[in-house]
Amino acid sequence: MTISYQKILSSSKVRPYLFQAHFGLEREGHRVRPTGELSTLSHPKCLGARSFHPYIQTDFSETQIEAITPVFDHPKQALQFMEALHDVIIRSLEEEELLWVQSMPPALPENEGDIRLAELEKEKDVAYRQGLALKYGKRKQMVSGIHYNFEFADVLLQAMWEQQENVDFQDFKTEVYMKLARQYLRYMWIITYCLGASPRAEFGFFTDEAEVPQQPVRSIRNSKFGYRNAQEVFVSYQSLEKYYDDLSAYVEEGALSEMKEFYSAVRLRGGACAEELMESGIQYVEFRNFDLNPFARVAMDEDTSRFIHLFALYLIYMDEEDCTDTSQRLGYEINDCVALEHPLKKTNYYEEGQQFFSQMHHFAQTLNLSQEDQGIIDKFAQMLEKPEMTIAGQMELAYQENANFALELARDYRKKTYQYPFQLAGFTDLELSTQNLLFDAIQKGLKVEVLDAQDQMVSLTYKSHTEIVEKGNMTSKDSMVAYAVMENKVVTKKLLDRAQLKTPKGQEFREPSTALAAYPLFKDKPIVIKPKSTNYGLGISIFKQPATEAQFRKALDIAFHEDKEVIVETFVTGTEYRFFVLNGKTRAVLRRDAAHVIGDGLSTIAQLVESKNENPLRGVDHRYPLEKIQITETEKLMLEVQGYTEQSIPEKGVRVNLRENSNISTGGDSIDMTDEMPEAYKAIAEQAARVLQVNITGVDILIEDLTDESASDYSIIEANFNPAMLFHLYPLKGKGRRVTMDVLSYLFPEVFAS
Amino acid sequence: MTISYQKILSSSKVRPYLFQAHFGLEREGHRVRPTGELSTLSHPKCLGARSFHPYIQTDFSETQIEAITPVFDHPKQALQFMEALHDVIIRSLEEEELLWVQSMPPALPENEGDIRLAELEKEKDVAYRQGLALKYGKRKQMVSGIHYNFEFADVLLQAMWEQQENVDFQDFKTEVYMKLARQYLRYMWIITYCLGASPRAEFGFFTDEAEVPQQPVRSIRNSKFGYRNAQEVFVSYQSLEKYYDDLSAYVEEGALSEMKEFYSAVRLRGGACAEELMESGIQYVEFRNFDLNPFARVAMDEDTSRFIHLFALYLIYMDEEDCTDTSQRLGYEINDCVALEHPLKKTNYYEEGQQFFSQMHHFAQTLNLSQEDQGIIDKFAQMLEKPEMTIAGQMELAYQENANFALELARDYRKKTYQYPFQLAGFTDLELSTQNLLFDAIQKGLKVEVLDAQDQMVSLTYKSHTEIVEKGNMTSKDSMVAYAVMENKVVTKKLLDRAQLKTPKGQEFREPSTALAAYPLFKDKPIVIKPKSTNYGLGISIFKQPATEAQFRKALDIAFHEDKEVIVETFVTGTEYRFFVLNGKTRAVLRRDAAHVIGDGLSTIAQLVESKNENPLRGVDHRYPLEKIQITETEKLMLEVQGYTEQSIPEKGVRVNLRENSNISTGGDSIDMTDEMPEAYKAIAEQAARVLQVNITGVDILIEDLTDESASDYSIIEANFNPAMLFHLYPLKGKGRRVTMDVLSYLFPEVFAS
Repeated sequence: MTISYQKILSSSKVRPYLFQAHFGLEREGHRVRPTGELSTLSHPKCLGARSFHPYIQTDFSETQIEAITPVFDHPKQALQFMEALHDVIIRSLEEEELLWVQSMPPALPENEGDIRLAELEKEKDVAYRQGLALKYGKRKQMVSGIHYNFEFADVLLQAMWEQQENVDFQDFKTEVYMKLARQYLRYMWIITYCLGASPRAEFGFFTDEAEVPQQPVRSIRNSKFGYRNAQEVFVSYQSLEKYYDDLSAYVEEGALSEMKEFYSAVRLRGGACAEELMESGIQYVEFRNFDLNPFARVAMDEDTSRFIHLFALYLIYMDEEDCTDTSQRLGYEINDCVALEHPLKKTNYYEEGQQFFSQMHHFAQTLNLSQEDQGIIDKFAQMLEKPEMTIAGQMELAYQENANFALELARDYRKKTYQYPFQLAGFTDLELSTQNLLFDAIQKGLKVEVLDAQDQMVSLTYKSHTEIVEKGNMTSKDSMVAYAVMENKVVTKKLLDRAQLKTPKGQEFREPSTALAAYPLFKDKPIVIKPKSTNYGLGISIFKQPATEAQFRKALDIAFHEDKEVIVETFVTGTEYRFFVLNGKTRAVLRRDAAHVIGDGLSTIAQLVESKNENPLRGVDHRYPLEKIQITETEKLMLEVQGYTEQSIPEKGVRVNLRENSNISTGGDSIDMTDEMPEAYKAIAEQAARVLQVNITGVDILIEDLTDESASDYSIIEANFNPAMLFHLYPLKGKGRRVTMDVLSYLFPEVFAS
Repeated sequence: MTISYQKILSSSKVRPYLFQAHFGLEREGHRVRPTGELSTLSHPKCLGARSFHPYIQTDFSETQIEAITPVFDHPKQALQFMEALHDVIIRSLEEEELLWVQSMPPALPENEGDIRLAELEKEKDVAYRQGLALKYGKRKQMVSGIHYNFEFADVLLQAMWEQQENVDFQDFKTEVYMKLARQYLRYMWIITYCLGASPRAEFGFFTDEAEVPQQPVRSIRNSKFGYRNAQEVFVSYQSLEKYYDDLSAYVEEGALSEMKEFYSAVRLRGGACAEELMESGIQYVEFRNFDLNPFARVAMDEDTSRFIHLFALYLIYMDEEDCTDTSQRLGYEINDCVALEHPLKKTNYYEEGQQFFSQMHHFAQTLNLSQEDQGIIDKFAQMLEKPEMTIAGQMELAYQENANFALELARDYRKKTYQYPFQLAGFTDLELSTQNLLFDAIQKGLKVEVLDAQDQMVSLTYKSHTEIVEKGNMTSKDSMVAYAVMENKVVTKKLLDRAQLKTPKGQEFREPSTALAAYPLFKDKPIVIKPKSTNYGLGISIFKQPATEAQFRKALDIAFHEDKEVIVETFVTGTEYRFFVLNGKTRAVLRRDAAHVIGDGLSTIAQLVESKNENPLRGVDHRYPLEKIQITETEKLMLEVQGYTEQSIPEKGVRVNLRENSNISTGGDSIDMTDEMPEAYKAIAEQAARVLQVNITGVDILIEDLTDESASDYSIIEANFNPAMLFHLYPLKGKGRRVTMDVLSYLFPEVFAS
């Protein structure tokens, strides 16, 4: 089949689809002790069962965690997911364990027997690893890498195919992937040169003094000292048939135990295993020759992930020298040589490299790629001139400065992960409640997907069971009409009243005149006048002292301005508590205190606020569990009423309020009260949820006196269909309550039962 | 106990609560044939089982329907509910049956045996009626009335009680009701005078010539010829104890079979039966002496219902002559006399009446009642001067004009009920879908309540099972998250796509630049560019011919102006159908045709539109199943494009479209396609509902060719969580589908199983 790739890819019918592709990443890495030795602990229990975990597995040894992303349309998305997996893994580690950042394993035990194979459930999996240990030695198998799964989108392949005459689509697709694989093998030395990142081995990797590189190199892993098949195993990529026949033959004669033991830089993928390849055709390819980049927290940076995509496109665009085994063997040979070059020295294949990059640059211009993409190509091209810019080069320089640099990077990454423990990297554009739910879901091994970031809508899947969740707590467990009831304060109150639950007494009015006529009913009481649908407190008037008729009239005017219906309600005093009720049980209780500071006799109020704002839990724009206290006109007025200015220095222990309202969004404090709250009030919250027929809710209750054993002086304010779970997760004071995990176990009892 | 009622009721602490009370109505009425004889048909089967129907029962005979309202805070609300019951009853009658509008029964069969007793399930109920038939004769028992249940609100009684010293609240309450009852009996002649409405009897009521009034009277029903206990039965209202003791004695000696056989104008109510009265105290009173007013569709008008309330308030306000049996007997005596006066003559008790109304007027002024209330009192006072204004007086005048006037009124009321068969009287402020759901619920005997009219939220109850429904079809059967999914068009599409269901192909963009860069992907196709959240079609551009890059850019600008996210989608052609899917099955299919007229070769387009708009299904403001076609600028432009003006006369059979879009809201036609739609497409709609995990939904599908057996050329546009059921109920063409009943039977299978 003769395909004129350059013509096809340049066609205006193909170019719009050029970057349509799918990407996935798999990254291995060892758990180590803070001092850098292999961890002796087992795979963390909190990471759920490896028997089904879609994202977090173990590879060869018990310490070797493998993080696997789902497939995405952009490599950047795969990296972001990898960031999330990194957060989950690090925060699931025990006793200060670290994740080793290099491909070459950390110092290994003297006794090879002390290296624990991954303790998997299936006997077959264990036997396979035992076989490898016997054949290659355990030490070799401890090397880690990051694999890059790459698939051309069907729309691209279709568009390309439509430019070609008289070819079967399946054959065409196979040919495109075979060319990609051959070219990749021919030029993989460029990857080894630029991205090789295993210049040195730690103690215990090499046991045979004779078989050791004599200097720092670009990539031990990608060299003959690395983790590879016996020399005689050569599988031809001339055609899919040949590839498959060769592989089958090696398995038959016993040189390979299974097809997956073939450690090529490019693995052809299709079907569940290599055996199914011939039937299903090639679905995607797996590039396996990437060392872990220790300078990137997740072992690969964004530019690199994009470069690999460009590299792959260019490989199918450029003419092949030939498609015989000779080219392939030449590729191996050059790669072996480059891998063992000194990382700071110019490569022996400088000319070929120069030509490659110059042609690649030309390709980028011909296809009118973006400036950004051209910049990335140039960045990698420069590495050819400056070996110190390659990863191995940078590592060697870092090593010369500090032999422990890699361990320190691991410590750094762990620290960063804990800096904002309430966030999940890669998903920080979502609200905190959803980020935390996703964290828990990933930890437990549920498949997660963001269906819509704007609406905070995610799907969670275990086997064939899928649940969609909005805003972290709006689920299939609650009904459409329960939602409507909670949204409608009048109906909420009506239902609670009928169940003999206490709510502020009040009346609803549709006409200002009727409302005004009812003044005598309210003239002796503290009252609240408010629009039926309250938005951000607009149109609400509170009279802690009974209102005069004129005030009553004015407040009605204001409220009717906001809504066609207005509620006049008794004003209830007491402290407001938020009860998070799930499936009939109170899981967490929170008190919210109005923004305030406590004097120390030395600092001004402004200084006290500033110091309070330093708490890392406080931020802005609801991406933190608490908001920073702002000093706006409202706060200044509040201070004035108490006889203060910002510059006043309150005496030690004196509390100065900066707000009347206790909302977290205006700098309030959150205090966990789950253990302190008497059962009687919890029962009231639970009954309210039952009456409203709602399963996940936040019930707000005003309580006059917690110690009152009759539990009779309370008033239910409302039930929220979207309770802010994050306040319970990360309160300012008291114990955090992992209510997101409660939601998950409610949605997926089958996962939590096991 | 001495209570100074005038002082108490005048107190500023009491007056705000003066009108706080509860009201209920019970109205009896016979089913008759169009010619006015008793119907020989059984109680309508479609009205559900009388064993539990809370609103529609039968009284003495099988033809005597009893309509019972729930309790409301205003008499007007009870009347409105009665209007609804009237609609339900009339539309449930078979073969042109009518509802007799008078208290005196229609012509009765010569043979008393032909009067069928109500065919109730419980043997006890049947035996009770047999006993009455034997004792009083069936004919007497055929008289109908309307009962007015009245309860002072607790807040009023409390406020009154607080003005009184050293009295037990329960005793105080009993005393208030006993006074009301005594006064009512003393002055009930005023009711008989003003509202008496049984001047004549039809054939077969009187069998003994000697025992017949010799002239038209005010109220046969309230006279000695009416339906009352034996003369010797006198129950004293001096105190609750006496009342109870007297009643018990009569039951014991056999003069009454049960306490409920005591036919007083005021019955004291409390507990499930009279026997429980002493224990529970008086809860409310039942005024039973109202004849059916034939001039009001539901037998009582609004002013009357308010007057009775004012009358009751005044009765407790005014001083009692004494509280002995003498007064009570005097009341009976006057009433008996007034009842048999000629309806057009001045009453013998004119002076007492004048004094009564003048004092009542004074009371209204003292308590500063509204002008409206004073007007109502004056209106009734005037009847004293003008007997022709009394109901009996009006009836007599009408009778003189036309002896059949009452039957004609019954025909009129039936006609009015069918004039807008898609509405439910009393609930016309709600949307049609909710009105129809309530109609069906009432018909089937579910308890209904409007929880919130603005949100169209109602509750339906059968025994202890309550369902809340919003907008007629948002129920507990669908989840909060299904709602969220349907609201989010992008997620809807994503889920449908994954299930291999066809949707318009498209892409979502967050940045104008990325969207613009994707132009080549769309440059050859008809496309739609729209904001992700579409509101009323704002920001949507449709290109039936491929867009130029400039047009593409412009359309993106417009769409991004409306939303942060924009969708570019293939424009799909075909006809749009709405599938109403409930519990996995397609219950109805509708096609909507754009507003159009068909020429007749004679009329102008304006005339054709006018004539089309005459269809009673068409109205404005979504209170009708179809909207009238308006000729606005949009329609004029559409006509212009086709070469017409409003004054053009299209040839016979030529179709002229007035709109591009097929929305009902812009005058489109609705055509039922339930039977015509191939099963394959119904299956697609059902699968879509399954994939979205939604149980009640309207799925919109574009279909290219209904006859295409492969059923492959379709595109699902969206799923609606609030499908407009009314279009299916009352289509312009084709059979109406009672999907509201489907919703009910889905929510209450237990009611429909029986």
